[in-house]
Order: sequence, then C-alpha cells, then structure tokens
Amino acid sequence: MSEDKKKEIDKKELKAKIEKATERLSLLERQAREAKIPILITFDGYSAAGKGLQINRLIQAMDPRGFDVYAGGKGGEEAAMHPFLWNYAIKTPADGRIAIFDTSWYRFVQKDLFDGKTKESQLDDAFYDICAFEQQLIDSGMVLIKLFLSISQKEQKRRFEKLEGSKETSWRVNSNDWKRNAQFEKFEKINQNMIERSENKEAPWVIIDANDGDQAGLAIMLAVAERLEKALADRAKGKKAGVYKGPVPEKDQYKYGILSKVDLTKTLEKSEYKEKLAKLQKKLEKLHSELYRQRIPVVLCFEGWDAAGKGGAIKRLTSHMDPRGYKVCPTPAPNSVEKAHHYMWRFWNNVPKDGHVAIYDRTWYGRVMVERIEGFCTEDDWRRAYKEINDFEAHLSHSGAVVLKFWIDIDKDEQEKRFNERMINPAKQWKITDEDWRNREKWDQYEEAVNEMIENTDTELAPWIVVEGNSKYYARIKVLKTVVKALEEKIKEVEKADK
Amino acid sequence: MSEDKKKEIDKKELKAKIEKATERLSLLERQAREAKIPILITFDGYSAAGKGLQINRLIQAMDPRGFDVYAGGKGGEEAAMHPFLWNYAIKTPADGRIAIFDTSWYRFVQKDLFDGKTKESQLDDAFYDICAFEQQLIDSGMVLIKLFLSISQKEQKRRFEKLEGSKETSWRVNSNDWKRNAQFEKFEKINQNMIERSENKEAPWVIIDANDGDQAGLAIMLAVAERLEKALADRAKGKKAGVYKGPVPEKDQYKYGILSKVDLTKTLEKSEYKEKLAKLQKKLEKLHSELYRQRIPVVLCFEGWDAAGKGGAIKRLTSHMDPRGYKVCPTPAPNSVEKAHHYMWRFWNNVPKDGHVAIYDRTWYGRVMVERIEGFCTEDDWRRAYKEINDFEAHLSHSGAVVLKFWIDIDKDEQEKRFNERMINPAKQWKITDEDWRNREKWDQYEEAVNEMIENTDTELAPWIVVEGNSKYYARIKVLKTVVKALEEKIKEVEKADK
Repeated sequence: MSEDKKKEIDKKELKAKIEKATERLSLLERQAREAKIPILITFDGYSAAGKGLQINRLIQAMDPRGFDVYAGGKGGEEAAMHPFLWNYAIKTPADGRIAIFDTSWYRFVQKDLFDGKTKESQLDDAFYDICAFEQQLIDSGMVLIKLFLSISQKEQKRRFEKLEGSKETSWRVNSNDWKRNAQFEKFEKINQNMIERSENKEAPWVIIDANDGDQAGLAIMLAVAERLEKALADRAKGKKAGVYKGPVPEKDQYKYGILSKVDLTKTLEKSEYKEKLAKLQKKLEKLHSELYRQRIPVVLCFEGWDAAGKGGAIKRLTSHMDPRGYKVCPTPAPNSVEKAHHYMWRFWNNVPKDGHVAIYDRTWYGRVMVERIEGFCTEDDWRRAYKEINDFEAHLSHSGAVVLKFWIDIDKDEQEKRFNERMINPAKQWKITDEDWRNREKWDQYEEAVNEMIENTDTELAPWIVVEGNSKYYARIKVLKTVVKALEEKIKEVEKADK
Repeated sequence: MSEDKKKEIDKKELKAKIEKATERLSLLERQAREAKIPILITFDGYSAAGKGLQINRLIQAMDPRGFDVYAGGKGGEEAAMHPFLWNYAIKTPADGRIAIFDTSWYRFVQKDLFDGKTKESQLDDAFYDICAFEQQLIDSGMVLIKLFLSISQKEQKRRFEKLEGSKETSWRVNSNDWKRNAQFEKFEKINQNMIERSENKEAPWVIIDANDGDQAGLAIMLAVAERLEKALADRAKGKKAGVYKGPVPEKDQYKYGILSKVDLTKTLEKSEYKEKLAKLQKKLEKLHSELYRQRIPVVLCFEGWDAAGKGGAIKRLTSHMDPRGYKVCPTPAPNSVEKAHHYMWRFWNNVPKDGHVAIYDRTWYGRVMVERIEGFCTEDDWRRAYKEINDFEAHLSHSGAVVLKFWIDIDKDEQEKRFNERMINPAKQWKITDEDWRNREKWDQYEEAVNEMIENTDTELAPWIVVEGNSKYYARIKVLKTVVKALEEKIKEVEKADK
C-alpha cells in the first residue's frame, strides 16, 4: 500500500472516530444538563495551539442553549483591577450549564509570569489560591476539566508565520508571542512547574498534543466525554467527589465561647460620641480619597444579631464617603439565579475593585449561621465552609485588600427592647418581622454557631472584631476607629513598599 | 439683627428642612419599594458641581438594601466597545429598586461632544436614540428623574483650585475639566442644546443651582420626593404614565400577509448544498476575522416555527467561526431576575461588543409573538413593542452594527412530519415537548402575529429575511449567503469611510 493511500485511510478512520465521539458527547452533555451538573472546561497551553478551533469543534457537539464560551479570559482593565481569580469566579457555571474558558486563571502564573506582570514572590500565594479555589468548585459538585494544549517550538513558529502572512490574521501574533517562542525552554519550564504545583487528582491536567489538529480534537472530545461519564456514574451512585471535611468539635465545645466574654456594659456619652464621630468621619473621608489614589481595595463585613445596629453603624461609616468609591452590598435570601450557583458566587460579584470599598451587610458567613441552623445546606457543606471562607478571604488579602469582619453583639434583653421599640414606632415597623421573633427563639443555637465561626475564621489576614453593641454610640465609634486604624496602617505599608 | 445672626438662623432653618425632607424621602422610598416601582435617578451637569456629595446625602435617606449607585458612568473600555446606551441599559433597575447614576447616557452628547469624541454628525441619531430609550423606560412604568447640577464658571474654578490644592484630591481635576472651564460659554451652549433636545414631560429635567451645596441638597431631595409621591399616587389610581400606543390594524388585516406568499417548494440538491456550504463557510471564516479587525459588531436574529431548523442553520453558520468572536444567545423563558426587569434588559446584556457576533436563537420578538398570544403582557405592551424594537435595533445600527433578522418558514405539514420524526428518534426526543404540540394548535394566531410583526418591523437598518425552510439545505444556504453578502457590503462601506 502506498504512503498516500495509507494516509487517506487513516484520515477516514480518524474522521469516523470524531463523528462517533461527537455523538457520544452530544448525548452526555444532555444527560449532564438533566442531572444539573455544572461543568467548567478550561483551555490553557501554548499560543497558536489551536484553542479557538478546538473549542468550536467541541461546542458543535453541544446544544447552544447549554454552554457559554468566555474568550479574552485575559480580562482587560476590569479584571486587572480585581483579584486574579475574580474574572473567572464570576463566570463559573450554574447547575446544569457548561462554561468554557479559552484562557483560565492559570494565565496569572504562566504568561503573566513570563511577561513579568506576575512576580516570582507572588507565586506561592497564587498557587495556594488556585488550588483552594479549584477544590471549592470540585467539592461543590462541579466537574472541572483542565486541558493543556501543547505544540512544539517549530510548529508554533510555523503557525505564527502563517498567521502573520495574511492581513486578516496577522493581528493575532504579538511580540510577546515571539518572545515566548524564542525562549521556548524557559516558557516550558514555567508550564511544567505550573502543572506540577496545581495537580489535583479530581481535576487532573489533560495534556493534549496539539501538533495535529484532528488528533487533538479527538483527544479532547474523548477526555471530556470520559469525565462526564464518570461524573454521571458518580451521581447515579450518590457518590460525592472527594469532599474536604472540616474538623468536628467536641459536643458543647462552643456552647460557651467568645460571645460569653463580651463586656456589654461599655457605653459612651452622647456629647463624647458626637465629638468623636465628627473627627473620625473627617479622617475617614481623607483616607477614602487616599486609598483610591493608592488603589487599595477594602472589604468590610458586618454580621450580628437582628437589631444589633449593623445598619446604623454602616450609615455612620459611609455618611462622609464619596458614594462613587464605596458600595453597600445587602444580602437578602438568594434569588433563583444565585441559588443555582456556588454559594460564594453572588459575593464574588461584589468583590471591590482596586481603590474601592465594599461593605457587606451580612455576608458569606450566612453559610455557617442561617444555612447551618435552618438546614439549607448539609453539615458537610457548612463544615467545609470555614476553610473555604478563609481561603476566599486570604485571596482578597493576597491581592492587596484590607479585610475586616465585625460581629456586633448585643444581649437578649437589649434585643427584646429594640424589637418592641420597632413594633411601636410606625417609621420602624417594617424593620421587624415574624421571622425576627422566630430567629430569636434560636438564640442559643446561633450563639454556639457564632462562637464556632469566629474561632474557625479569625485569621491574621482577615480578623474578626467583636463589637460591644448594647450602646449604639459605643459600637459605632469602635467600628469607625477600627476601620480608620486599619486603613492608616495599610496606607503606610503600601507607601513603604513603594519606596 | 446682625448679618451673622441672620445667617445662623437661615442655616438652622435649612438644616431643619433637610431633616424633614430626609424623613419624607425615607418613607416614600419604602413605599415605592413596596409598590415595586423601579426608579432611575441620573446626575448630570458640571464637573465639581458636587455630585458625589449630593448622591451621598440622598442615599442616607434610603435603605441601603434598595438602591445601587453606579459611578464611573463614563464606562471604561467595555463601554467604549458597545453602543453608548448599553452601559446604562444593563444597569436599569429591577422592579422596586433604585439605580443612581453619577453620569448618564448624556455624557455622549455633552462632555464627549465637547472633547471631540462624539462627532456633530452623530448628534441627530444620538438624540433620537436617547429620547426613544427614555420613553421606553417611562412607558414600562419606571420613574426617571434627571437632575442637572449647575455651577458658575467662577465657582467651578474655585473648586478646581481647592481640589488641586490637596494631594488626596488633585487627581480629580484633569486638563479637560480646565478646558471646559476656560470655554465655559461653549460648554454651556452644549448643555442648553442637550436639555432642549431631550425634554420629556414625563421625565422633565430638574435644573439644580449647585453653587450652594446645602440648598442644592434640599432641592434635590424635594424634587425626588415630589416625583415619588406622584408616581405612588398614579399607581394608586391605576393610572399608566403616558404610554405610547402603537397603531391598531383593521380586523383580519394580517390574516393573510407575507407568510402566505412564501414559496416553500424551493429546494436544493445535496451535492450542490455541500459544495456551496463549504465555499460559504470558508468565506465567512475570513469575513469574521476581517470584521474583528474592523471592529464591526454583528447581530443575527433567528425566529421561526418550532422545528423550522433554526438550530441547524445556526450550526452551519458558526461551525467555521472562531468561538472567541461569536456567541449564541438562547432565549429560554425568563428567570425571576429577568422578569423583574424591563423586557429588553436581558437582550441588552448580550449586545455584542465591537468586532463580535451575537446570534440570538429567538429574540425580543417574543414580546409580539408568544407573550402576545399567551397573554404574558397586555395588548398595550405588545402594541408598543413594535416601535420599541425598531428603536432598539436602530440604536444598534447607529452604533455601527450589522443587524439581520431571519424568519425561517415552513408549512404545517412539514412541521408535523418533523415533530413525528423527533418523537421516533431517541436522539431527538428531548427536542419535542407537549408545549410544541400545543403551540401548533395556535398556528393561525401565530401566523397573523408574524405577518403583523414583519410588516411593522422590517426596516432598512434591520431588515427581515424570510427564509423558505421546507428544504433545510435551501434554508441554510440562503442564511449563509445573506450573512456573507451583508458583511461584505458593511466591510466595504467601512473601508470606504476610513479612506
């Protein structure tokens, strides 16, 4: 048989295999959708490895109503002003949907590293954050498929030249691409290191030899099909993929904890309050401008008993700040879109950009309070959440953010007094509902949960501040003082680093 | 009485009035929220007029869970790559919420005009688009409050100098600000013209003298309160604010229309189909690259009977395009978030950026088809929609987009044949539901609606193409041909304009 003849037969065989794989994938995609499995597929690798072509091939097998392709994963200016995982976290798929990234968060530790935008000193944190992020997605039941498309230095050069040869495609190749081709070995090492440091047996890297486009296409389809098949089989068996489990405490370990030691007798006179408030608000106004200039993001979290005075404290905090530089993010019960996503997703959407302040009125800590107590998630879910939350906050902090968390504390009598006031005052009646009274009955359960929460999530990067709240004046001043001090310290730190 | 004494008394009085207004506003805001009225408040005017301060004052009166402040309305690179209304349309409030813009769509015909970014020749279209956009919002029941903050040339200069005097605030003033101050009269004329050309008696401009911050603050609060009071009273009376009404046709005017003249016998042989398909797809691949380079956005709309072959046509259209440059936007039943917004909102979210292709699998035309026939909106709503849709598409076109709308037509027998095929074929069964059979029973109603729709919305800027769809081969080729031709013409037009 002649060489040509053989090639032709091989090509025909390959085509038949691709057709079969397409059919198989098509069926699996539908089944995964019906089983409400969220799927995230990332394409990383070398420039000109044919990602666009391969993604298009893959999606031809899928119903267009089931997936989203995110291109330009490199982000642009919005992404550059956020923690590097942000641009992807906000695009993670809802239950039953597929998200395909043509570049993923790995860009930060790959091309951006080669190009000098990411510093070597950032790598440890970055890999920690990446691994933690992926584990969270996996533990929530998401199927994460990481594809790495590899081509040789010679083939890449050939493709660059071909692209540059036509005016329609020459814009696709830039000087950084050529630089990485010239220093191929250096870039290869970065890739190897990246793959080693981010291995996860539940989401293993799939290395695709992309020198031959058709072969690569088949390999990708088979890899995706295999993972979907496994996920469907696991679901059918009710098996949860390698869920990280948090530590389980002794019985009653948190019955008496940090909350039982709060000195709620602390107070402040009105005249002193007014004087201090004016001074601190003036300071904060200046600091707010300064942190905008220095591009420091700030995350302020408010939790506390119903009627503890979160709203009032937030009002005093913001009343002299420029509204174009801060955002108050309330946390009502999740809507249907939010419910279909990872529980952190809706909070990711409000992560502040550099120089901005996000104030969360109730937060992701709902996971380990109301969701735990009302049974809106499983015990595994909320036990896992302590670490997930710490990891999320660490990522914010690694990205330069100030993160502060306030628990505003009052005692049961004070709450009853305030509830009754609300019932009587027509201007405040809307603030009090039957649910508030029902929650009150679960005071002890909540106290135990809060003790455990603070114990497990009070970190150096994102500390809890317990605020004595029986006196509103005292509480508001303590919040303002704490914020002012933290901002002053951060600004000093940044100024020092800039020198 | 001494001057000082008098001033002090005036100040006290003003403070008392502001306090009263704050209380009143607080109550109204809550009532508007309960009445599910969406509210949009824009702040336009002169630089350093104190927008930040005034917005902050306004929101102090409101529950932070009810509003969003959008700063940096000027947009950034994402906004610059979209039609100028896009950045605001996607942020219009849901029912019961308040959106506050520190700069609105008027920037395009104000600062951007002064700075030379907007050309004089674009003004007519821009004002048409603005007025149409605002009317749509108003007609949907939104309260639109447009505030214009004005200060004198002298006062502006003083404020610029003060801002520049401190390192925390000096970044707030740039060379364009100074230029507008130097050429104050020229900028004033632009403002006057803008206000005149965009007057709407249901959303009149409120001109605020902002030379005195406290007086301005009071004036703003009173203006907002007055509008909310009126809106609440109107709602209570069941009055709909000045709703534009579309023309009502004669009875049976659209019973026989364009659809009765479609020649469904047109066919194409498989061999010819394959040959033409390959050629056209190759052409399209090149054109896609070219329009990316030329930054031309493309909007392709697909409507048609169930099983008409929309999906198949879209697949052939996209199979050789780079997935990073196109997006297929399916249109399932709206979710709860979408339902709480203006019906165009979810489509605005997918408007393509420059150089990208958005393919809508079903579209905003659902308003005048399924929503009309199933009674999901009132007759006023869908009659109004013809003009609203034309205006929306005109705006896309004014912004440089190619807009094409395909109606894929088949006859009732062909549909039955395809439905039955789907019932039998296990790989296609999921595609056919009871709802499809139910819709089929309403064929005549749909035909009448489609005739009326095409008649009312077939415009030069956004034409309908009726595709003879009994032969899938014929239909797919016609779609591809039409797209190729339209893109070629647009590219030529752009190249000519660039010369």
